[in-house]
Amino acid sequence: MTGAECLLRTLADNGVRVCFMNPGTSEMHLVAALDRIPQLRGILCLQEAVCAGAADGYARMTGFPAAALLHLGPGLGNALSNLHNARKARSPVVALVGEHATTHLRHDAPLSSDIAAFARTVSRHIVTVPGVDAIGAAAAEVIAGALGPPSGVGTLIIPADFSWSPSNFPLPRVPAAVRPAPEPSRLEQALKVLASDARAGFILGGSALADHGALAAAGRIADARGARFFGDRTAPRNRSGREDFWVRRVPYFPEDAGLALAGLTHLFFVEAQVPVSFFGYANTPASPVPEGCALSTLAAPGEDGPAALKMLADELPGSELRPRVLYAPPAVAADGPLTVDALGRTLAALLPAETIISDEMISSREPVLAHLLHAAPHDQLPVTGGSIGQGLPVAVGAAVACPARKVCALEADGSAMYSLQALWTMARENLDVVTIVFANRRYRILDIEMRRTGAAAAGPKADAMLALDRPELDFVRLAQGMGVRATRAVTAGEFAAQLRLAFAHSGPCLIEAML
Amino acid sequence: MTGAECLLRTLADNGVRVCFMNPGTSEMHLVAALDRIPQLRGILCLQEAVCAGAADGYARMTGFPAAALLHLGPGLGNALSNLHNARKARSPVVALVGEHATTHLRHDAPLSSDIAAFARTVSRHIVTVPGVDAIGAAAAEVIAGALGPPSGVGTLIIPADFSWSPSNFPLPRVPAAVRPAPEPSRLEQALKVLASDARAGFILGGSALADHGALAAAGRIADARGARFFGDRTAPRNRSGREDFWVRRVPYFPEDAGLALAGLTHLFFVEAQVPVSFFGYANTPASPVPEGCALSTLAAPGEDGPAALKMLADELPGSELRPRVLYAPPAVAADGPLTVDALGRTLAALLPAETIISDEMISSREPVLAHLLHAAPHDQLPVTGGSIGQGLPVAVGAAVACPARKVCALEADGSAMYSLQALWTMARENLDVVTIVFANRRYRILDIEMRRTGAAAAGPKADAMLALDRPELDFVRLAQGMGVRATRAVTAGEFAAQLRLAFAHSGPCLIEAML
Repeated sequence: MTGAECLLRTLADNGVRVCFMNPGTSEMHLVAALDRIPQLRGILCLQEAVCAGAADGYARMTGFPAAALLHLGPGLGNALSNLHNARKARSPVVALVGEHATTHLRHDAPLSSDIAAFARTVSRHIVTVPGVDAIGAAAAEVIAGALGPPSGVGTLIIPADFSWSPSNFPLPRVPAAVRPAPEPSRLEQALKVLASDARAGFILGGSALADHGALAAAGRIADARGARFFGDRTAPRNRSGREDFWVRRVPYFPEDAGLALAGLTHLFFVEAQVPVSFFGYANTPASPVPEGCALSTLAAPGEDGPAALKMLADELPGSELRPRVLYAPPAVAADGPLTVDALGRTLAALLPAETIISDEMISSREPVLAHLLHAAPHDQLPVTGGSIGQGLPVAVGAAVACPARKVCALEADGSAMYSLQALWTMARENLDVVTIVFANRRYRILDIEMRRTGAAAAGPKADAMLALDRPELDFVRLAQGMGVRATRAVTAGEFAAQLRLAFAHSGPCLIEAML
Repeated sequence: MTGAECLLRTLADNGVRVCFMNPGTSEMHLVAALDRIPQLRGILCLQEAVCAGAADGYARMTGFPAAALLHLGPGLGNALSNLHNARKARSPVVALVGEHATTHLRHDAPLSSDIAAFARTVSRHIVTVPGVDAIGAAAAEVIAGALGPPSGVGTLIIPADFSWSPSNFPLPRVPAAVRPAPEPSRLEQALKVLASDARAGFILGGSALADHGALAAAGRIADARGARFFGDRTAPRNRSGREDFWVRRVPYFPEDAGLALAGLTHLFFVEAQVPVSFFGYANTPASPVPEGCALSTLAAPGEDGPAALKMLADELPGSELRPRVLYAPPAVAADGPLTVDALGRTLAALLPAETIISDEMISSREPVLAHLLHAAPHDQLPVTGGSIGQGLPVAVGAAVACPARKVCALEADGSAMYSLQALWTMARENLDVVTIVFANRRYRILDIEMRRTGAAAAGPKADAMLALDRPELDFVRLAQGMGVRATRAVTAGEFAAQLRLAFAHSGPCLIEAML
């Protein structure tokens, strides 16, 4: 077999089942090898940002890497924005990047660039295949690096001659990643603090927000001791809906975050990091953590946070099980103008149980999430690193990972345009994704940030840089142009009718919600 | 004034007239300052690849930088692919990248990343603003770095607090870039070689291919001494059409390149670099240069190549002026199926004089270029670094740079999808760009490369990774979705009729040519 086949076999033997790809000449042998490895599915994406975001979405839902095959440095460049989010989410991703043949590297060929330099900022682990004999071992090393713990992006740089040369070397197995249990001493310390009159808070991240049992434990700790719980903004996935204790993300704006955390004397971290303001502003503290607040780790990233929370709740006197339904089921909004509120209410009322929501709503986010608390149980995949353009690609990956579940991409109009090409892959693979575009024709969040940063009242030139209304984007045509059926909703009634249809049928569709 | 205003004023005072942008929170003060600087035009792009490619296109037509304003590391990430092409083209570009406030940098905020590491691979010169007092000087340094010679991408990293702080420091002036004249000793050597029975060739790059006089000189040298002329594949711009001596780019495939250069004993470089095969292949030499061929520099990159060629032609005995029309004017193709050949013939027949062609045709390129030799005089802007997705953005920049000229983007369908968002900016700014999409529903070049690399005959899974036909992309709807009027041509007659209309009217339009 070729080195390329050896590489892909090593991936397949170690459980990698999907490769999102946009290949070029240097990856042709990897593409050709696909037909000899039935377990590995190749999924074509029209731009590398889609490959990277899809691999991130797949990892968030499975905890296991998909591969993303990218063409040399520029292909990796296109993927960096979404790999940045994957890094922050600690998503296990195997990025396969083709490189010129080693014999060709010393020439300054047109596509030559420093691939490792591109990769370094987003990768936990980078390996350049050192020779065809080592190609399987290099692939295994990158899978292991991606799995961690802690998990992250592993990047394998593959010179083309090692792909095309013959290789018959054994296919190494990566040992299963084992998550360390939380340390008992940390549990004891937390119990001591909770038994005192300290005002305790918890920041949950990683797997802790994704686990119904962990959230139930958090609810019990909150009830028993009045502890406050917050979600890490980089958490890759969180449960939501009327059966789960709600853990609010640390708010986006620093004043809100400061208010949320005000008065806390102890803060415990469960697979989470110390919160920090998204951006720095003049005369605003960077951290919302109150001065003098003690910071302790209950479970570090990569450790078993859900186990830690459950053990803590079980040890805590007075911690009771909560009722199964915590929030009242919602009703579809009455007909009338389609507002963000009406959209959120209707979505919450109609959302099928176990839907996966890819959340890139930006300025519309908070009101919709408040309604979704009342929805049937579901998973949310938020933007973890603040890099825009992940919503549609992450939806692709989640739909590939969980074909039996509905996926719903909630997309701001500005955000959707960064990696709109994802719609084509949804159509090609007939993925069960309902995309809702929040069409307010502005980079609305920047209106707010323009005021917040103290920039002088925007004049007409500045204002035009935040406006998406000249010309109006027509998302119905854009979706149809990539083979996705699409409709436009101008009233709350139209939106409800279209959403009912969308949830009743399978396969991709898009609703342009005119706000 | 604020630091942001000081920065933009420094750009404007030094001749920068346009900023292609996709800003975020950290760049709000730069956006706000736009209204206080009437000379500087802000142009919004929906994805950063468009900003970077547009700045490249602008630079190729003016020789002077536009700015590209990008949001932090991820924004720069999206721009890298087209900045890679700009680097290879030696285009002067000023990349402005927002950074977190310096007070915020020590926190691992969600959008934190190593911006300089992203920038390093594509930039000739990188400056991080060291303080608000130095913001004008830093901007001037980056402009000077971009101008060279040799020119390239200059990157300015701008911490947000230096943008929002008050600054009243002087606005430094960048001295005009002076191109060194070619060295007389090199001319003497070239004359000596041309006078001998050596078989001499020239590789032209940089400005040498863009200058009618330089090409005329090349033609005279070719006629007088039988010297062969080739274009550097990284040359940013070349004249073409029936009034210019044709300098063929070094062919893409190494066998063709080897044949083109076979037998040469001397090779002279004019603002060019030693040709190398685009990709390495097993059993194929990386360089098409014949063994033992002597290599000499006539003008180094950044030196005045056109002057060198003209001086050489003037000194050369027997070098005559050529007639003004070198190639016969073409006729519109007869009606019938729309083939690449018919498209090229019709395009050549109808092309308005002084059209600027952004060329990203990929597999359809060679037959169309052969027809364009017969067209009215025009400029071509090719892909310089092999990174796909520059064609539409470069067309945006060229149209902004030269509003009185028609721009024609010749786009492969696969290539068009990488940065299709450029169409929206064309509509918004009412740019006079005719986009022709070569819709063959394949990554056709990869069919060829799949065979060339010796990858086994593609099975159905591999074949699917090269196919764009499930679902079919509908470029008419995609263009209309971004406000660009569009039509589809299935026959040669339809294409001719639609192209006549497109050239007769101004403003953006798109023709989907069904091949």
